Amino acid sequence: MSKPQPARGMRDILPGEAAIRDWVQSKILATYRRFGYTRIETPALENIQLLTGDDGGENAKLVFKVMKRGEKLDLARPGMTEDDLVDLGLRFDLTVPLVRFFTSNRAQLPRVFKAIQIGPVWRAERPQKGRYRQFTQCDIDIIGLDEGLAEAELLVASAEALLSIGFEGFTIRFNDRRILTAIANAAGVEPARHGSVFITLDKLDKIGVDGVKGELGMQGFTEAQIDRLTRMLDGVDGISVEDFAKRLGNSLSGDVVNLARDVLDSVSADAGTRYKARFDPTLVRGMGYYTGPVFEIAQPGYDFSIAGGGRYDKMVGKLSGEEAPACGFSIGFERVVTILMDKKFAPPTEAKLTALLVPDGTPLARALSASQALRASGVAPSLFPLEKKLGRQLEGLQASGFTHYALLDGDGAPAIKEMKAPARG
Amino acid sequence: MSKPQPARGMRDILPGEAAIRDWVQSKILATYRRFGYTRIETPALENIQLLTGDDGGENAKLVFKVMKRGEKLDLARPGMTEDDLVDLGLRFDLTVPLVRFFTSNRAQLPRVFKAIQIGPVWRAERPQKGRYRQFTQCDIDIIGLDEGLAEAELLVASAEALLSIGFEGFTIRFNDRRILTAIANAAGVEPARHGSVFITLDKLDKIGVDGVKGELGMQGFTEAQIDRLTRMLDGVDGISVEDFAKRLGNSLSGDVVNLARDVLDSVSADAGTRYKARFDPTLVRGMGYYTGPVFEIAQPGYDFSIAGGGRYDKMVGKLSGEEAPACGFSIGFERVVTILMDKKFAPPTEAKLTALLVPDGTPLARALSASQALRASGVAPSLFPLEKKLGRQLEGLQASGFTHYALLDGDGAPAIKEMKAPARG
Repeated sequence: MSKPQPARGMRDILPGEAAIRDWVQSKILATYRRFGYTRIETPALENIQLLTGDDGGENAKLVFKVMKRGEKLDLARPGMTEDDLVDLGLRFDLTVPLVRFFTSNRAQLPRVFKAIQIGPVWRAERPQKGRYRQFTQCDIDIIGLDEGLAEAELLVASAEALLSIGFEGFTIRFNDRRILTAIANAAGVEPARHGSVFITLDKLDKIGVDGVKGELGMQGFTEAQIDRLTRMLDGVDGISVEDFAKRLGNSLSGDVVNLARDVLDSVSADAGTRYKARFDPTLVRGMGYYTGPVFEIAQPGYDFSIAGGGRYDKMVGKLSGEEAPACGFSIGFERVVTILMDKKFAPPTEAKLTALLVPDGTPLARALSASQALRASGVAPSLFPLEKKLGRQLEGLQASGFTHYALLDGDGAPAIKEMKAPARG
Repeated sequence: MSKPQPARGMRDILPGEAAIRDWVQSKILATYRRFGYTRIETPALENIQLLTGDDGGENAKLVFKVMKRGEKLDLARPGMTEDDLVDLGLRFDLTVPLVRFFTSNRAQLPRVFKAIQIGPVWRAERPQKGRYRQFTQCDIDIIGLDEGLAEAELLVASAEALLSIGFEGFTIRFNDRRILTAIANAAGVEPARHGSVFITLDKLDKIGVDGVKGELGMQGFTEAQIDRLTRMLDGVDGISVEDFAKRLGNSLSGDVVNLARDVLDSVSADAGTRYKARFDPTLVRGMGYYTGPVFEIAQPGYDFSIAGGGRYDKMVGKLSGEEAPACGFSIGFERVVTILMDKKFAPPTEAKLTALLVPDGTPLARALSASQALRASGVAPSLFPLEKKLGRQLEGLQASGFTHYALLDGDGAPAIKEMKAPARG
């Protein structure tokens, strides 16, 4: 009989990791609550039309689709397409459902709505090492607030959330889609092809300047365009947004420049020596729905970002016909957990977790009255049958987080003993 | 443009309820952890074969099924059945996935495995008031422990979990499937039809003795059988398991009687005046997989149970070929939340949640430096534009949990003011 396994691309979360996940979640939640954000939840399943619309981009192709049920399902129909068979899908992110939530519940929500969402999303990607088809996202969003205040608050709150779980020395990278547009314009790229330029530029970290040049060339951009683009982005490490605006020949609106400068000044003052915030005109962020500032957080020593977000002012209007400005930031929950697991991080546990070991043949009434007596004294003993090799059993219990044990060997109340400190490898 | 809504039978969880849910979950988790249980998580999607097997019973018919993807999906195939189209399903409970988890990860788990699971499950039931197609379950299970110790610990830990969220005066009802079998035998019902008797008996609370008699009659049981059954269960309110065993003519094994008595004595000693535990030979619990003790918790004033569980010693062996005894208890998370919402329960919130109100036209740099100054003084202000009617805005903020506010109206650091106590309806 072969043992059943998790479905392909899915995984189980064992106790050690689950404890870390719960701890991370509770710390992040507490921080965001302190900043006045409230948690909401949306269902995992949404109507399929919502998920396969434009705003999902590439992710919309990765939706797990749910079959219609009962009478609605007609398998005998000739020339059937997927649309005839499917009515629901599993959400692939928390942003599309948030916008749907906001439009469905707008009358009951405050005018400026600050939301926390933490929950699983699903994408039918080709499984690969470290990437799974179900993973947890952790987003905060502000709907109803124009640019400036919102961005600064999202950045500071998310930085505090990361600090609360022990991260520090990270760097916030900040850019604006309108600056990217100005770059593409200045390079002589027609607006319809800006998207292609941005997608390639997004890979700069991974494939370098030569890689970007090569890819743009393959896409048919002229040598002059590519040259202008790369020269504009050469040596921008640490450049101020004002200096970069000069490099662009002042084609940028002063509002865009002031916004980036003011947000970065404010966040930097907050950061002190704990983390950094800097302008980075090469930052793109993948999603097509961003309309203004975009930002992410990089942690030294890791080649992936640990948080990312931006402003998406058109999505609410597109879905509901009533506009509302919106901006969000997402902490890469799985990445953060992976980093903590790599570091062998152990979250704080119960100070006095006690196992009550019951020898074979002990009358049930005796075992239960002993455990009851312990509970009456304020201990919550966890009952286990005594195994033949006590030493080995205690090692196992320690690995599960137990700090104390009591052996039910005499008639009276069992004595609680502290376990020896485990030998550390 | 019509506003998109949650999918049929699904619902959004708004901030007020989400805060209660998080609080309930954190209290229950803390209690179970104190008893030495560790949390695990399984993926929402499992291979469809696992979910549509025998042990799901009626629930297996309610699985949301996920379509195959890419090359695996062939819509043009003639005579196609559901099996050709579907490879995954959403879990309908946490017990089947737990057993799969245990068999997949057995080598990495302690010999006696005490698990907590809290998470959503999905059932494609006909939507009705107060019942949704996605809901949260909250289970603890012990795998690897024989009857007695396990049941007592599950009951006491779950009672403590309920006490920790403010429930009291509830009653634990305890029975054993082997006692139900003895009842059916004593009534002269052939073993193949025991299941039908139990399903009908399970409705005693709802349809009364006459209802049960009627339903058994319709199922073709003889008047003599029905008469014996109902007489055996007449006036059993408060009966001890020993007295009930006598009524059954001592056809019950002494072990079964002693088990019920010892567990009830121990739990009652623990309960004191806080809750009750009693034997109830009419208790059935729906699932077909139970093999021994079954139990549930009833809260006065509510006609549904708020927790239920039992022993299922055959499931692990059936799935993996290697037997392991198992027993679980599930708190009705949604029911508990509903009761707390009915009672207008409000979980504890931030002691000093502060809104910083920014008048229209304030320079961004000024707003951000003021908020930064507040953060430097230890407050995490939540930024909002000042609205025209301050009183109304403050009311809204109070409804969202804010206790303090500061108005950015002068040049210096804004003063933090406490909001007036809200007028209570």
